[in-house]
Amino acid sequence: MTEIGVGMLGYAFMGKAHVNGYRTLAYMTGPPAIEPRLVAVAGRNEEAVAAAAKTFGFERHVADWRELVADPAIQLFDNGGPNDLHAEPTIAAAEAGKHVICEKPLGRTADESHEIWRRVAATGVKHMTAFNYRFVPAVRLARELIEAGELGEIRHFRGRYLQEWGMTDAEAWRFVREQAGSGALGDLGAHVIDLARYLVGELESVSASVRTFQPGREVDDAFEAVVEFEAGAVGTIEASRFAPGRKNALSWEVNGSKGSLAFDLERLNELQWSEGTSGFRTVLVSEADHPFWQWWWPHGHVLGWEHTFVHELRHLLDAIVADTDVAPHGATFEDGYRAAEVCDAILRSAESGSRERIAYR
Amino acid sequence: MTEIGVGMLGYAFMGKAHVNGYRTLAYMTGPPAIEPRLVAVAGRNEEAVAAAAKTFGFERHVADWRELVADPAIQLFDNGGPNDLHAEPTIAAAEAGKHVICEKPLGRTADESHEIWRRVAATGVKHMTAFNYRFVPAVRLARELIEAGELGEIRHFRGRYLQEWGMTDAEAWRFVREQAGSGALGDLGAHVIDLARYLVGELESVSASVRTFQPGREVDDAFEAVVEFEAGAVGTIEASRFAPGRKNALSWEVNGSKGSLAFDLERLNELQWSEGTSGFRTVLVSEADHPFWQWWWPHGHVLGWEHTFVHELRHLLDAIVADTDVAPHGATFEDGYRAAEVCDAILRSAESGSRERIAYR
Amino acid sequence: MTEIGVGMLGYAFMGKAHVNGYRTLAYMTGPPAIEPRLVAVAGRNEEAVAAAAKTFGFERHVADWRELVADPAIQLFDNGGPNDLHAEPTIAAAEAGKHVICEKPLGRTADESHEIWRRVAATGVKHMTAFNYRFVPAVRLARELIEAGELGEIRHFRGRYLQEWGMTDAEAWRFVREQAGSGALGDLGAHVIDLARYLVGELESVSASVRTFQPGREVDDAFEAVVEFEAGAVGTIEASRFAPGRKNALSWEVNGSKGSLAFDLERLNELQWSEGTSGFRTVLVSEADHPFWQWWWPHGHVLGWEHTFVHELRHLLDAIVADTDVAPHGATFEDGYRAAEVCDAILRSAESGSRERIAYR
Amino acid sequence: MTEIGVGMLGYAFMGKAHVNGYRTLAYMTGPPAIEPRLVAVAGRNEEAVAAAAKTFGFERHVADWRELVADPAIQLFDNGGPNDLHAEPTIAAAEAGKHVICEKPLGRTADESHEIWRRVAATGVKHMTAFNYRFVPAVRLARELIEAGELGEIRHFRGRYLQEWGMTDAEAWRFVREQAGSGALGDLGAHVIDLARYLVGELESVSASVRTFQPGREVDDAFEAVVEFEAGAVGTIEASRFAPGRKNALSWEVNGSKGSLAFDLERLNELQWSEGTSGFRTVLVSEADHPFWQWWWPHGHVLGWEHTFVHELRHLLDAIVADTDVAPHGATFEDGYRAAEVCDAILRSAESGSRERIAYR
Repeated sequence: MTEIGVGMLGYAFMGKAHVNGYRTLAYMTGPPAIEPRLVAVAGRNEEAVAAAAKTFGFERHVADWRELVADPAIQLFDNGGPNDLHAEPTIAAAEAGKHVICEKPLGRTADESHEIWRRVAATGVKHMTAFNYRFVPAVRLARELIEAGELGEIRHFRGRYLQEWGMTDAEAWRFVREQAGSGALGDLGAHVIDLARYLVGELESVSASVRTFQPGREVDDAFEAVVEFEAGAVGTIEASRFAPGRKNALSWEVNGSKGSLAFDLERLNELQWSEGTSGFRTVLVSEADHPFWQWWWPHGHVLGWEHTFVHELRHLLDAIVADTDVAPHGATFEDGYRAAEVCDAILRSAESGSRERIAYR
Repeated sequence: MTEIGVGMLGYAFMGKAHVNGYRTLAYMTGPPAIEPRLVAVAGRNEEAVAAAAKTFGFERHVADWRELVADPAIQLFDNGGPNDLHAEPTIAAAEAGKHVICEKPLGRTADESHEIWRRVAATGVKHMTAFNYRFVPAVRLARELIEAGELGEIRHFRGRYLQEWGMTDAEAWRFVREQAGSGALGDLGAHVIDLARYLVGELESVSASVRTFQPGREVDDAFEAVVEFEAGAVGTIEASRFAPGRKNALSWEVNGSKGSLAFDLERLNELQWSEGTSGFRTVLVSEADHPFWQWWWPHGHVLGWEHTFVHELRHLLDAIVADTDVAPHGATFEDGYRAAEVCDAILRSAESGSRERIAYR
Repeated sequence: MTEIGVGMLGYAFMGKAHVNGYRTLAYMTGPPAIEPRLVAVAGRNEEAVAAAAKTFGFERHVADWRELVADPAIQLFDNGGPNDLHAEPTIAAAEAGKHVICEKPLGRTADESHEIWRRVAATGVKHMTAFNYRFVPAVRLARELIEAGELGEIRHFRGRYLQEWGMTDAEAWRFVREQAGSGALGDLGAHVIDLARYLVGELESVSASVRTFQPGREVDDAFEAVVEFEAGAVGTIEASRFAPGRKNALSWEVNGSKGSLAFDLERLNELQWSEGTSGFRTVLVSEADHPFWQWWWPHGHVLGWEHTFVHELRHLLDAIVADTDVAPHGATFEDGYRAAEVCDAILRSAESGSRERIAYR
Repeated sequence: MTEIGVGMLGYAFMGKAHVNGYRTLAYMTGPPAIEPRLVAVAGRNEEAVAAAAKTFGFERHVADWRELVADPAIQLFDNGGPNDLHAEPTIAAAEAGKHVICEKPLGRTADESHEIWRRVAATGVKHMTAFNYRFVPAVRLARELIEAGELGEIRHFRGRYLQEWGMTDAEAWRFVREQAGSGALGDLGAHVIDLARYLVGELESVSASVRTFQPGREVDDAFEAVVEFEAGAVGTIEASRFAPGRKNALSWEVNGSKGSLAFDLERLNELQWSEGTSGFRTVLVSEADHPFWQWWWPHGHVLGWEHTFVHELRHLLDAIVADTDVAPHGATFEDGYRAAEVCDAILRSAESGSRERIAYR
């Protein structure tokens, strides 16, 4: 097999980002052992999906995702649709024997996410939740440094994802519970939760407050949570769509007994590292021996946000070809479910006023 | 009256900082309507207190703080002693008719702090809790901008105070509950709580976790809290002595409906301001019309940390001379008590696992 | 015409960057009015060029660039070869009626650059010197702000391009005069000179010193120059390959009577703007109305270095299709020549010890 | 001798800064072996100088600096007057046997500076030019690192001093040649030149351009210079009063064969250090073993601009008491003269259009 047929649900923001990933990895990363072939894209608006198919280079477009599931030319189902279109199509595709990647949040609730995970896992296909920030080179480097013991015992994780567009009425579907599941929580918070788990390990409990600032919205505009990790660290996880001046500010800091790391997505090529108490050094993550940089440019020629998808999709294709685990560097549907379980606990805690234990099923 | 006699308890870190404040304000700020006269300093170690008195320019030194209380030449009692020496001497001084300033935390608990406040307030003297960070020019400017409505309705406050020295055994008294009351909470967290109140208003509830990382310590090394404000904002307050690379990193961010402000004490001359969503502008707080800058240098000739004490003590002397309120810009003992009430609620929440309401007495 | 056949000379660093540009613009920017078709790539190492052709998606590869010139399927000749392969192939391609884009420096000297420009211009084809940093969104925004008068009268331009790899022996051809023409001057300095001209206007004179630190090298490792602009501004232009810690640090600052702008390529998504004396605001250049951002992502999802080529090549294709000028936003061969004239003046000044006037032919 | 009587000429910006230095060092740094006693201040405006004397704590004020020279109670003459009052009073004081410190620039020209130096040096008193930025802890640390070989062989020095107030009419005397000597050159550039010499060593040549932007001014508003150092390094030195957004931006970078250092006075507590090519680490210069920090606070409690004077004056008093050299860490009048020689060479080069050698007499 030298090609893998990709069928995609959705062609907006995330669809475009995934297309760019497939098209770029084909010539930039190697080349890969297997080439993605953009077979078909599904969308309900005939005119728009036709235009997208043409622009993005899909061989054809379809009106119903079921056609993708039924199409034998498709071996990989890529779900970049809205949150209420994650469960049914993804499960159907997997049960039709296709590998699956699904945008985050995996499901709209922990229940739905668990259902997706269990049913897809039962089929034996590869599954990936598109927590693409694991594939920022600086984030991968942070993970490697932590795993190598460079930070010692981890005491703190503080992560925030701040945006400002909640003050407008853009992307209205994101404010409707039935479609989105939750607001800043599933959209932004899930990323922070996933990185917390990826960098520091499992969470044990959360204590949270949630706010909807804009009258009439069914979902949260912001949340704040204290988190405790199984291994003893404590910290905070926060997200808001009401932080003027913060465009896409996913930032985190990890403090360990031997040093600290800090990161800000708006400067995604930089990792701040204090070795011991020496003070923070700006590591411009772009050296030939830095994660993913074997594929790119001489150092200092920095990468953009969308290359996370190049790395992520290359990782998925490698796992498919070699039949290796998507984990630990790729997020599986189990990871998608676990993030959802934490999200649900945050909502429960905000409601109950109590510290809620994370109980994975 | 052209002079005010100052009697000081303690001559270590805080004593030195206050001395510098009194001595500098005398010629730098005006001059002031009243001149501080360093009458006497009290300390138990005869040799050390004698040396301090000589170096700092006190007219004499005494072994027992009661001598300060009894001394008619002293009209202002300045308490920079350890936390277990806050209550009794401060109350005694006030009851002897002396104005009082006391280092933070005011008392070791909310109970003790309340007792200090009520008994001192009953005497009619001026009282100030030394929350000196209210007197950072950038912090005062932030307060003025918020009061003027520049940020609109406040949605978020996130404040952290991170240090790293908890990993050593310096300043052992700070780890003993009887002497210190609490750890990072009262020492660092109280500052953040006070700034939250100063900038955003009263807190309504906290949900917190606390950690003591170092075996054998009686007090907290770090805490994390979600906070809700009476006016509807939500956020986090955190402090840790276990953040390698962070020397004195008191940082906060406020997001409002019209803009955001951010600050970091390690760059204390800078205020980050996003007017609307325009992005953050570095305001180098040093213009002639910026708070406190009528006393200083041409712009760009930046100030150091200890000038907060110059501003704070000048503010106190002004209140004494003009018989005006120390509040709202100065922290009174009521403010000291209120911070302590929040600290206690954080400990209760950490223990109970529940969101704790702040109930001021 | 819906397609344009591209023939490329060179497939290393720059070749890969241009390929990425062509392939990405095809689906990311629109789509464009004309699609680039990767017809053939030329290289002397048969095995390597064959592999490159396969990876990058060229239809075929050739051993001799003359085959590209002779190929009627090629309408655009893209020269990313070493500096000593700029003149002859580029002129030949233009004289064969093909549009041409050539990497910088255009020629190894002003004489050679002038020859390339004049002979190519005489053919009537479109020609572009690949000064890709004009196509950084923040740089284009800076140009627009300056043109709109936001900075008032320009007083200063200070530009530096600092790298560190000169301390190693990588890319040996760059140290040989016959192949490279010059060292840091043509490689890095030419970019700064071009940006100075693009942002502020023509240079009038230079006063320079040059250094070769590494024994045995035939070209400069660094240069420093004072520059005077025709319109009255003064400043400095510098470049070095011997600046440890600086990976790809092209930075500049412009001061005008009404404000200042500053930029650093290592943070290429940010433009620092002081409106009047208000202090520098970080403009995260990623809004929908920012240059080139109609093609990309929601704001804050930042771009990487190589997207400059997407913008640059799209600009060239637009000029070809619409038969419009490549200038002023694209650099023509005249711009390539003018940068070379300044480079030569810098070498002359370093030699003569005198301020050298820039005399364009 | 336990006291040293200080007589001061001038009581404006610099006078206030020096007073603060004397008053603070007395209790903050030790105490010192000798205490400064503020004997008298001279000024022509009776009312203003009387007020200054009272505020600053001088025992008396005089109308004529000759009274200071004649006063046996004064052993140290501190000249913070305008540039045209540097030569005569300073020489007279030294010839009367008083130690002297004089603000920069030492004289208005190299000739005048040389005269001051030679005549004062002949008397045997201690002499210091107030290049206070040598006494920024981060600058001293940089010097120590360079001396210890941490940067290897130095290749580059780039220093700028940018301000913005030249666009206003403040401090009119600074624009008059007779009073000021030069403009940005002597006022700001002299600081950069002195730091270049202090950190990297003697300059060999300059190639410069100078501008006066504001019609009617007799002195330069800005200059730009390429500099060559005797030991082989090259770089640039620049200053401007026409850089909007730059309040007091003295910044420099040094690149060596083993690493780089960078500094910005607006963040004067930070030294940026790239050890080798590892990237820049922010050293918050405030550790107990950092220069001058034995006198101050726990780390992270950062210093302000005016503490440079505390350090500088303490250094001078130490040299007086111990009869040791003011050099190398303190700038002598020879250093003041040498900076002036470079300033003159910059003016000559701007005029001649030629690289000018620095020829010290």
